[in-house]
Amino acid sequence: MEGILDDSYFMKKALQEAEVAYGLGEIPVGAVIVVQGRIIARAHNLTERLHDVTAHAEMQAITAAANFLGGKYLHRCTLYVTLEPCQMCAGALYWSQIPRIVYGAHDPQRGFAAMGAQMHPKTEIIGGVLEHEAATLMKQFFIEKRNLN
Amino acid sequence: MEGILDDSYFMKKALQEAEVAYGLGEIPVGAVIVVQGRIIARAHNLTERLHDVTAHAEMQAITAAANFLGGKYLHRCTLYVTLEPCQMCAGALYWSQIPRIVYGAHDPQRGFAAMGAQMHPKTEIIGGVLEHEAATLMKQFFIEKRNLN
Repeated sequence: MEGILDDSYFMKKALQEAEVAYGLGEIPVGAVIVVQGRIIARAHNLTERLHDVTAHAEMQAITAAANFLGGKYLHRCTLYVTLEPCQMCAGALYWSQIPRIVYGAHDPQRGFAAMGAQMHPKTEIIGGVLEHEAATLMKQFFIEKRNLN
Repeated sequence: MEGILDDSYFMKKALQEAEVAYGLGEIPVGAVIVVQGRIIARAHNLTERLHDVTAHAEMQAITAAANFLGGKYLHRCTLYVTLEPCQMCAGALYWSQIPRIVYGAHDPQRGFAAMGAQMHPKTEIIGGVLEHEAATLMKQFFIEKRNLN
């Protein structure tokens, strides 16, 4: 478990990933997975570049972390992600049995809570960490995109 | 759209994929994606072999089909899958905007319906096609697995 003091530290790392996505013209969402204070996976949204709806930051981070650990369960890990996971990512996180998820901005339209998807009953979920930074990045992205079109 | 007469034909192809998974010691679920009567993606569950909870048959088929089509939306496609999709796969299918999903066996525990996940409102969903065959394969797998342990 990462302590409360550390959550904003790791969320900043996830925000750096979101900024990489932004630079690529992708909806700016980033994620890191941490075990015992160590980042074992970093990823950012690549759905446009890969033409793949499954290429959300969380999905790639789950695959990378499992590969690093050599097993499909992410026991003892924490996921930091800049946006509330969607139902696809919630489903993957459910299967991974990850014990802790920390997210930044809420997604009242397509977030797992609004969509009715379920997280694993043993998963602790903390939302709103560096929410302003994550939400501002998203807003900037969509304003810029609108102005370009 | 594939006609009703063709659904069992394509489900048999998905069942062949499930049998490949069975032979690898994976929970036997298979999927194919079809556009205009042509199979453009085939996949089977590989979660154990890849140590990856995201490696469900549907997820791999979605990625493969999008790669084939050169775009992330699976408009005009039908997914055939031997087991009712879970909430992760339902979430991915939602994002893909696939217009038609045909599945075999129901999954009253972890299927998208039981878990409360949402399919895209424009997606037609047909369950129970070759259900007996798909369910029998699953039952056989779990009986065999129990006997081995």
